[in-house]
Amino acid sequence: MTYKIAILGASGYTGAELVRLIAGHPSIEIAALSGNSKAGQSMAQVFPHLRHLDLPILTTIEDMDFDGIDLVFCALPHKTSQEVIAKLPKILKIVDLSADFRLRDPAAYKKWYGNDHAALDLQKEAVYGLTEFYRDDIAAARLVAGTGCNAATAQFALRPLIAAGVIDLDDIIIDLACAVSGAGRSLKENLLHAELSEGAHAYAVGGTHRHLGELDQEFSAIAGRPVEVQFTPHLIPANRGILATVYVKGDAQALHNVLQKQYADEPFIEVLPIGEHPSIRHIRGSNFCHVGVVADRRDGRAIVIAALDNLTKGSSGQALQNANLMLGLPETAGLMMAPLFP
Amino acid sequence: MTYKIAILGASGYTGAELVRLIAGHPSIEIAALSGNSKAGQSMAQVFPHLRHLDLPILTTIEDMDFDGIDLVFCALPHKTSQEVIAKLPKILKIVDLSADFRLRDPAAYKKWYGNDHAALDLQKEAVYGLTEFYRDDIAAARLVAGTGCNAATAQFALRPLIAAGVIDLDDIIIDLACAVSGAGRSLKENLLHAELSEGAHAYAVGGTHRHLGELDQEFSAIAGRPVEVQFTPHLIPANRGILATVYVKGDAQALHNVLQKQYADEPFIEVLPIGEHPSIRHIRGSNFCHVGVVADRRDGRAIVIAALDNLTKGSSGQALQNANLMLGLPETAGLMMAPLFP
Amino acid sequence: MTYKIAILGASGYTGAELVRLIAGHPSIEIAALSGNSKAGQSMAQVFPHLRHLDLPILTTIEDMDFDGIDLVFCALPHKTSQEVIAKLPKILKIVDLSADFRLRDPAAYKKWYGNDHAALDLQKEAVYGLTEFYRDDIAAARLVAGTGCNAATAQFALRPLIAAGVIDLDDIIIDLACAVSGAGRSLKENLLHAELSEGAHAYAVGGTHRHLGELDQEFSAIAGRPVEVQFTPHLIPANRGILATVYVKGDAQALHNVLQKQYADEPFIEVLPIGEHPSIRHIRGSNFCHVGVVADRRDGRAIVIAALDNLTKGSSGQALQNANLMLGLPETAGLMMAPLFP
Amino acid sequence: MTYKIAILGASGYTGAELVRLIAGHPSIEIAALSGNSKAGQSMAQVFPHLRHLDLPILTTIEDMDFDGIDLVFCALPHKTSQEVIAKLPKILKIVDLSADFRLRDPAAYKKWYGNDHAALDLQKEAVYGLTEFYRDDIAAARLVAGTGCNAATAQFALRPLIAAGVIDLDDIIIDLACAVSGAGRSLKENLLHAELSEGAHAYAVGGTHRHLGELDQEFSAIAGRPVEVQFTPHLIPANRGILATVYVKGDAQALHNVLQKQYADEPFIEVLPIGEHPSIRHIRGSNFCHVGVVADRRDGRAIVIAALDNLTKGSSGQALQNANLMLGLPETAGLMMAPLFP
Repeated sequence: MTYKIAILGASGYTGAELVRLIAGHPSIEIAALSGNSKAGQSMAQVFPHLRHLDLPILTTIEDMDFDGIDLVFCALPHKTSQEVIAKLPKILKIVDLSADFRLRDPAAYKKWYGNDHAALDLQKEAVYGLTEFYRDDIAAARLVAGTGCNAATAQFALRPLIAAGVIDLDDIIIDLACAVSGAGRSLKENLLHAELSEGAHAYAVGGTHRHLGELDQEFSAIAGRPVEVQFTPHLIPANRGILATVYVKGDAQALHNVLQKQYADEPFIEVLPIGEHPSIRHIRGSNFCHVGVVADRRDGRAIVIAALDNLTKGSSGQALQNANLMLGLPETAGLMMAPLFP
Repeated sequence: MTYKIAILGASGYTGAELVRLIAGHPSIEIAALSGNSKAGQSMAQVFPHLRHLDLPILTTIEDMDFDGIDLVFCALPHKTSQEVIAKLPKILKIVDLSADFRLRDPAAYKKWYGNDHAALDLQKEAVYGLTEFYRDDIAAARLVAGTGCNAATAQFALRPLIAAGVIDLDDIIIDLACAVSGAGRSLKENLLHAELSEGAHAYAVGGTHRHLGELDQEFSAIAGRPVEVQFTPHLIPANRGILATVYVKGDAQALHNVLQKQYADEPFIEVLPIGEHPSIRHIRGSNFCHVGVVADRRDGRAIVIAALDNLTKGSSGQALQNANLMLGLPETAGLMMAPLFP
Repeated sequence: MTYKIAILGASGYTGAELVRLIAGHPSIEIAALSGNSKAGQSMAQVFPHLRHLDLPILTTIEDMDFDGIDLVFCALPHKTSQEVIAKLPKILKIVDLSADFRLRDPAAYKKWYGNDHAALDLQKEAVYGLTEFYRDDIAAARLVAGTGCNAATAQFALRPLIAAGVIDLDDIIIDLACAVSGAGRSLKENLLHAELSEGAHAYAVGGTHRHLGELDQEFSAIAGRPVEVQFTPHLIPANRGILATVYVKGDAQALHNVLQKQYADEPFIEVLPIGEHPSIRHIRGSNFCHVGVVADRRDGRAIVIAALDNLTKGSSGQALQNANLMLGLPETAGLMMAPLFP
Repeated sequence: MTYKIAILGASGYTGAELVRLIAGHPSIEIAALSGNSKAGQSMAQVFPHLRHLDLPILTTIEDMDFDGIDLVFCALPHKTSQEVIAKLPKILKIVDLSADFRLRDPAAYKKWYGNDHAALDLQKEAVYGLTEFYRDDIAAARLVAGTGCNAATAQFALRPLIAAGVIDLDDIIIDLACAVSGAGRSLKENLLHAELSEGAHAYAVGGTHRHLGELDQEFSAIAGRPVEVQFTPHLIPANRGILATVYVKGDAQALHNVLQKQYADEPFIEVLPIGEHPSIRHIRGSNFCHVGVVADRRDGRAIVIAALDNLTKGSSGQALQNANLMLGLPETAGLMMAPLFP
């Protein structure tokens, strides 16, 4: 059986990544694409790398016909997303890639995103989309909220360690190197090639990055007490990939044991041998996440490093993985392609 | 039915690219891998991006057991390749990615490569591996010689035009921008990131690039008279991709008609609307080749631009496309993945 | 003696490059800076790399006091430039970096830039700013029109050859690899890091690039007959540098002799030994231009390759070189810094 | 007066950077250059970006005549450096850029570098070359040991804070993003463009980087008790620059006050306004170091970020700054060039 899906916001990078992945999927077909500012254009015009595919023309959301659609991927900006989803037919399954349904607490949403939530009833039914930890809920859900790409990376490194009680919860530092596609296709001076190339700088320093809302929510829930990590993302001159270097207090071997056990049967999470650590160049374009643990020279301290592709495992790949579950398909369908290297 | 293949020289970039592609192939299985200098290592050690795959350990060619193998991909350096292939069981089908069997004339081989050919009998049976133009011969061949990646790009732009007699054969200039993976994983100063980044320089200027041997052979054969093009490759700070900008004397619309007709049914060659031209970022990681034609402001002159990924369509993708034909499989099997952008 | 200068349009890349160069100049002082959209800001805010310098706050042009100013660098967009310069006190010496005063023929200006010229009297007095070929006129000029960066590169390769009559004027092809800073700090999708990195594409293909207006004017004037070259710029993933690969019909040794003789005493033009050719990584951040000549395998054909930094020798360095002449200072003052490599 | 200097090891990146800087120095002249593996070649052959300079031919060290030389820059690998320096005439002033004379304790040297020190008497007289903190000793020294580039960056962020007692000495984490030129011109697979581009990975994880020897020595001496920091360098796809993100426990405002006071009169160290932080693109090619302080959302925690160019302020620029002091020249001579951006 083939399921029909629509992608709202197909003219951005996560939308294009969804098309790339679904083009190779055995049981999902793209039935409709929206891209309001580029409505009327073909995908070949907006993304020439997709010109070999026979795809629907971009429409506005208003003009989209949802009859026969099984599932909608919503790759719109936050705030817009909640407004659009509130108006969609309730029969549709939805995977939202925005930040709108990630935070269960409306106050936390307002704190991090600045506006009141306009679809609180939908928020109540939304399931947090970190597949490896919410698998059963996702399979049963109608609305799944894709995670932040940085938040996903940090959680793959830390969730099992917090759950197992093997690290000090008051001294967790997450330092990230983030590739630029995570900022989307927006026209900003610091995303220009001439500015970013040969650059490297931190941003949202001091605990102001919005993905912290997710980490606070998830880590505190696991620990059963408030957990506030330190978190510094850095923009580096690369296009895809997040490398999270996480500093924790705990025994490296114990940490490695916990991670290895947790991820032993996961198809997409690879725990490296102890002492080894990953590079973003080895996961590019794939749905894999590599995790490594190294002991520090100081006893009782360890470094956990996780790498994934922000557009794939951190966003559109995760979204498809969740859609597979929601549609009753094999979780890995269309997602097993090897990374592109070099 | 599943065919078993071996890859000789799996520790280089074209070897790794073959593994990446075949990992997603429905009917081909990797049964053996050689990598003489890295024999005994796992592919995960040599290429960590492949660590999720269950692959044979790298062996020496001497230790490789060819029983049950249907086809061998030979991704070895030229000269080594002919020596190795000469010793392989004659029952094996072979796709050679080196330069060793591309030139039908032993004198031309010696002129361009410096050494006498040591397997002239094999040369006689080898078929030149530019799939779109040697399809039937390849399907029937035991030994196929993969083309040079630059030579493939130039031929996709020029072969139909030469055959149709629509361009001046004495004034063809091919100017290429070539990404660095075409130089392989060799340790040379000018391939270092610190040297190449923010660099751009021509090499093999003046008609000394070895791929000219192929172009001379092929273009002259098509034209029925000697054709000698001008050819200047440039190394640019990118990893994958060749962009060939070809200057010809002829009518742009006539050229475009010829190309469009030639490639109308080709699954991998996309002719853009007249006036449009391609970028390497739109074919990266894929087996597609994009071709465009633009008229010059001077009447009777045109620019033809072709783009492909040197490691995929220019090398390992082409090799797999040929292997599919040789094994009686659908030509496109395992090769329809969309390009990776951004 | 110290001269005081003002820079109009100091918030763009060429403006910042002027500040960088003049900061190291022994006899020139920056007295005023304009940047209309960023008026009121310090240069440290707009260009943090200049924060160690004690510079005037950015103002609007309207608020700028020209008393005591000896010379103005005008780094504004074309069309704006002619309007602004028309209103400046006539006592000021002016180096204009825009395209507004490069073309002596108003019809040509309109053809290439689309609008009528609004300051034709000023156009009459303007001197074309290619220092090495207009040195005496520039020294005596009040208004100098900086050249296009691509046009400068092509002219360093070709002017002496055309003048000497050693090449066929009907078959000149100029193929350029251009770094992205030449496009300025403008917010366009194809200048984003995620789009350009791993990209390479031609633009203004077929003879539509505006710098052709300059080449037509200059080459025809030298030849005493119309000369129309072919010209294809390519955007490559680098920040600074233009590499022009020029295909001509002529004897390589004769060409090399002409170039060597022409540039023997030039402080900034380096002619490489015959057979050698330049790379943009070896001129970055400097005012040098490297030129090489290689014979093609086909008799009577040669490749001339020239490299310079578009922001320095191609624009702001050239502007300062001209200002030095106009102020009676040593031509090389403040310009002899070595390139930055790696 | 002009001083004559020699550079040993001029064929590496730090050697070339010394030549670049000294070429613009008003009172220093390059009298001799060695490059053992490239002896007999001109600098133009080894580094074409220096072709405009009139430089001595590369010789072997054995063939070098030290008569009339005032000072030697030794840019050789560690271990070689101590052997060479031990044989130099004792009258020469020496700035060593290797690791050989950085560690005062021979046992620490052996621990971090693996071999016994072969010039312990010289070690005794060597002064640690972090100019801003050893200025008077350096001015009086005969032998100065340049610091590690990573170690310099970390010390600019941390020395004043440790001295002022405003941070917790037991919880200092230094996370660095390092550009690739810091690894030198050595031929290693992971320094190839095809490997590093689109890559980012940690190295020497867990406290094994040799620059920790310097940090342990210096920080413990300042604190008067053992201080062991955590330290993780990451290789990023850029050519020049180190960005150190330092996590400390202390009050951000107090930290900022200390740094601002410490560096108020330093010509090369720029402390940004509190809450701002630097990027490596803003110090490239210069001798400046930018330092910023940001408060974390958690009270009593702060992030200090420092950026410098590893080849300039981190190595050859520092060496020249020290040489200026040793020769009685103005400390900033030849070093005030603005960074190159973009």
